[in-house]
Amino acid sequence: MADAWLDGLPASTVPLANRGLAYGDGLFETIKVKNGKPSLLARHLARLQEGCKRLSLNLNIALLRQELAGFCENLGDGVAKLIITRGDGQRGYAPSNATPARRILMGSAMPAYPPQNAQAGVRLFPCQTRLACQPLLAGLKHLNRLEQVLARGEWQSTEYAEGLLCDYSGRVIEGVFSNLFVVKDGHLLTADLSRCGVAGVMRALLLELAGNANIPLGIRDISYRELLAADEVFICNSLYGIWPVIALRAKSWPIGAVTRTLQDLLNSTEG
Amino acid sequence: MADAWLDGLPASTVPLANRGLAYGDGLFETIKVKNGKPSLLARHLARLQEGCKRLSLNLNIALLRQELAGFCENLGDGVAKLIITRGDGQRGYAPSNATPARRILMGSAMPAYPPQNAQAGVRLFPCQTRLACQPLLAGLKHLNRLEQVLARGEWQSTEYAEGLLCDYSGRVIEGVFSNLFVVKDGHLLTADLSRCGVAGVMRALLLELAGNANIPLGIRDISYRELLAADEVFICNSLYGIWPVIALRAKSWPIGAVTRTLQDLLNSTEG
Repeated sequence: MADAWLDGLPASTVPLANRGLAYGDGLFETIKVKNGKPSLLARHLARLQEGCKRLSLNLNIALLRQELAGFCENLGDGVAKLIITRGDGQRGYAPSNATPARRILMGSAMPAYPPQNAQAGVRLFPCQTRLACQPLLAGLKHLNRLEQVLARGEWQSTEYAEGLLCDYSGRVIEGVFSNLFVVKDGHLLTADLSRCGVAGVMRALLLELAGNANIPLGIRDISYRELLAADEVFICNSLYGIWPVIALRAKSWPIGAVTRTLQDLLNSTEG
Repeated sequence: MADAWLDGLPASTVPLANRGLAYGDGLFETIKVKNGKPSLLARHLARLQEGCKRLSLNLNIALLRQELAGFCENLGDGVAKLIITRGDGQRGYAPSNATPARRILMGSAMPAYPPQNAQAGVRLFPCQTRLACQPLLAGLKHLNRLEQVLARGEWQSTEYAEGLLCDYSGRVIEGVFSNLFVVKDGHLLTADLSRCGVAGVMRALLLELAGNANIPLGIRDISYRELLAADEVFICNSLYGIWPVIALRAKSWPIGAVTRTLQDLLNSTEG
């Protein structure tokens, strides 16, 4: 599926002068598409609009909505990757928010994740790469992703389904392409992402589902010690849903009741 | 001058799947071209190679050298912007260093900098945007430049030729597109760039020229207080050379002897 659109028209390339290429000046969303429909669309678009506001990107959201509907209908099942860039720039960092942002859509098949990940759980690779603290960009799914590239380059073995990322103060933040939750004494906890990290749409959905199910929850800093002391650990993203985490280095965790409850809640939401 | 090459061939676009666009997964150099020759070529290539090593980019440097020579000869006078990206990726952050890195060259005219900047000096805008500390990327001229885009977006007035960037600990690091030097009691000082910042080729040249001229020099953290207490301040980059800094907020500095000496040394080096 090499299907791709640029500003609503079939395309395979983008101008060399695009500011996405020059500076990573833009945002992206990775959207699961099922039966021609984008999953969690409202949440993806809300995060995108929050990003456009913080980066002063001039996005025509109505047009994007329309294009996304058509693109996903064509795609049927798979993944729609949406990239928004400030447009094609003159030289220099100065951003122009007069230029309309470019809208890129690329379709692909769903990644071939091992189906046992959701049932039997996964091992995390302990990444040496740390996340820098940059509150101005924290939470956004922006195009400056060298930290993730470096972190993902740390392991090749398929033994590890994901890598654990901490910040330079040793706080546990997230996976390379997932958010992370821990459960302790029935309380659900996920990292505060106001300094670094990507605020995933699946994370937001799970927080809502947990809240509705009266599972006590918190969003705050998580130390490495707290991670190790957790009763359950799981990771999530919008493509694969929830994977229980069963091991990190010498530490192992059981797959617990809260993780299974949330998987069930998620399945019934999606079904 | 819309001249541009991709991997040695005339081009105006790059594939949508390019990892430079997806993740800012690459490096760049902005090279002054005079009479068909790239200025400070050895320094640009050395920084590029250092970057390729740290990001595990598989760059054919011999081929690049050859292309750069031809491109600059065609360009005559102006600026050659070189972008190196990891190539066109499959989905996901995992970097493949088997794929040869893509080589992009774009030509443009020299920016129309006000000629009085070098003589009469410039005012700095005090940017609120701070640089994050990320030693893994510090010093490199990589494609993750959202901090610079945000910082440059803070001012529109032509009263300010550059903006001052500090890190989150308040250390004085650099300009948005320049490096910064201070002079105190005849000592030349520029920021340690092991946590953040771009190690400019002009900065490196000036450190060498100062060393050769027996000007005492240091590379270390600079506090905001030290900046204010400096006898002279100047900024530099590979396109404009040296601009004395004469004002920041209510503070003003004279244009001093060390600044003028380095401007003279630079002019005779370039001449």
